[in-house]
Amino acid sequence: MKNNEPKNPSCPVPISEYPRVLLAHGGGGRLMHRLIDKIFVEAFRNPHLENRHDGALLNIDPPGRAVMTTDSYVVHPLFFPGGNIGTLAVDGTVNDLAMCGAKPLYLSAGFIIEEGFEIALLWEIALSMRREADRAGVQIVTGDTKVVERGKGHGLFINTAGIGVREHDLTIGPASIAPGDSILINGDIGRHGIAIMASREGLSFETEIESDCAPLAYTVRELLEAGVELHCLRDLTRGGLGSALVELAEASDSRIHIEENKISVIEPVRAACEMLGYEPLYIANEGRFVAFVPEKDARTARDILIDRCGWPRADIIGRVENRERALVTMKNIIGAERIIDMLSGEQLPRIC
Amino acid sequence: MKNNEPKNPSCPVPISEYPRVLLAHGGGGRLMHRLIDKIFVEAFRNPHLENRHDGALLNIDPPGRAVMTTDSYVVHPLFFPGGNIGTLAVDGTVNDLAMCGAKPLYLSAGFIIEEGFEIALLWEIALSMRREADRAGVQIVTGDTKVVERGKGHGLFINTAGIGVREHDLTIGPASIAPGDSILINGDIGRHGIAIMASREGLSFETEIESDCAPLAYTVRELLEAGVELHCLRDLTRGGLGSALVELAEASDSRIHIEENKISVIEPVRAACEMLGYEPLYIANEGRFVAFVPEKDARTARDILIDRCGWPRADIIGRVENRERALVTMKNIIGAERIIDMLSGEQLPRIC
Repeated sequence: MKNNEPKNPSCPVPISEYPRVLLAHGGGGRLMHRLIDKIFVEAFRNPHLENRHDGALLNIDPPGRAVMTTDSYVVHPLFFPGGNIGTLAVDGTVNDLAMCGAKPLYLSAGFIIEEGFEIALLWEIALSMRREADRAGVQIVTGDTKVVERGKGHGLFINTAGIGVREHDLTIGPASIAPGDSILINGDIGRHGIAIMASREGLSFETEIESDCAPLAYTVRELLEAGVELHCLRDLTRGGLGSALVELAEASDSRIHIEENKISVIEPVRAACEMLGYEPLYIANEGRFVAFVPEKDARTARDILIDRCGWPRADIIGRVENRERALVTMKNIIGAERIIDMLSGEQLPRIC
Repeated sequence: MKNNEPKNPSCPVPISEYPRVLLAHGGGGRLMHRLIDKIFVEAFRNPHLENRHDGALLNIDPPGRAVMTTDSYVVHPLFFPGGNIGTLAVDGTVNDLAMCGAKPLYLSAGFIIEEGFEIALLWEIALSMRREADRAGVQIVTGDTKVVERGKGHGLFINTAGIGVREHDLTIGPASIAPGDSILINGDIGRHGIAIMASREGLSFETEIESDCAPLAYTVRELLEAGVELHCLRDLTRGGLGSALVELAEASDSRIHIEENKISVIEPVRAACEMLGYEPLYIANEGRFVAFVPEKDARTARDILIDRCGWPRADIIGRVENRERALVTMKNIIGAERIIDMLSGEQLPRIC
């Protein structure tokens, strides 16, 4: 499959020397230093990495406003339409910070590599991380490399931790959800999960479905700068829109009502879900979020999402009825109401 | 082996329900939330985790003084004499911060769990992490859990990232190494690597060798508070004392000279190294570091290490001759001088 090929084969480590990662590349000796220098320091290049210390000295200002988050990425396959494990590892962690209302600043990156992994692929992934970090306005300032024996890992796992700062006085989180809040989404759902599923199973659809993988930091900043009173933000990753809303309803004892006809699902995703027996509501996304805002700000917020942030399918999908009892209901296309529950496990493992 | 057994079997998740981790525990649904609540939030308990958001809001003060670091831990076996992957995941990252001269404050923890892993072991490891975090004076403030299919991981991998603050005006790092600096070590070398090797291979020695795994944050703080002018600090993990010194010599163009008779190796470690054909100089440690200090401060520093920090085998092991050319030499026990080089790969894979 062409998505498994590196897009930039000009890898700075001579391929003929060591085309694949050896156990010794994780051993703390010359080989490890060479791998780190030639691949990661080269791709992520910034002053923090160049001091070659085990930690990066950072400017985090104002005090009392730092936000920290972490995620490990085990997506399989590593390359999929619309991205790879590296873009995901940057976007996922950037988005967790953005969902806290923080401006993402710095990322760490920890690599767990299976012996035998192709150096050229590692380079391609590191380059994607750099591109995505630039796109999100963050720097990858410190990292770590470990190698495990063949058969004890699965190609590559990446962990990123992120630091951001909150530059406003809003408390963005489930506790701030208020009765009457409008619920916005920034686009159609289900692309990421279906893109992964299709590349994993070798399925091909008439139209290739690309992951929606994207950094959300600038979008959140636009909303904040326009003065939208953000009550709560949540990205719709594992478990999808359905699980996210149930989680928020439970964390805030809110009764949430959404309307299916407001939730956009592109035709190829809908067709794939029907064919595979999946429910789009529970499919993972990597560039979608919901925002809870007071009704007075809802239209402004939607216009900003569509016009200024380039999310043409953004819409107001529902409302917080009250804060008396945790419940999520959805009016479906034919007008019937049903209760939305959290899935017990998952539809697709290893989508991020 | 008894070291593979959990020491605290009172796991808060009823063992009869799910004794082992399922793929669904990583899927973003109810099972995952239950695992996180009952194991990680329970073990790490602190106000940052209780807000149940994807990021933790932290107080980092003063601005411009934050330090960030990360490490993944893939040690095998997971339990070994003197510690487990959890203690290592806390100590290793705490020590990276301490080596930057920072006071460690906050850790994130990312878990990559192989399907089928015992929940009781996960609980035991989480408890060890809590104990070690308390010992080091840090809080585990945010985390993530992923599950990979059986055979696609190896029990458990942990990533921790850490944030600390530098509360002084010293620039601690290779650039500050000066001609005439004394080089101190805080104890004997080689225990961690040999402890791992012995438990991996089922070797038993007359005396059980325990890992030296320990947090070094308080030790560094004692040195700083006593006014010792720390020029450079480096922990002696992968690659051991030998690789660390070569790395520092190369980063600072220093000629470093050490004396073998000042470097303590306990008898069982020496015997094990001889038997296995290893060189103690390159064996990994997890609670040992070198400090470069001006000669005037060397004895004070040694006394603090021994008397105040409880490192009875601490000593001055060498000296920086000049900053003209990167070279490390060692006078051995019979008085001959040899050049110390970095290993190309490693002696033991997966020791941290």
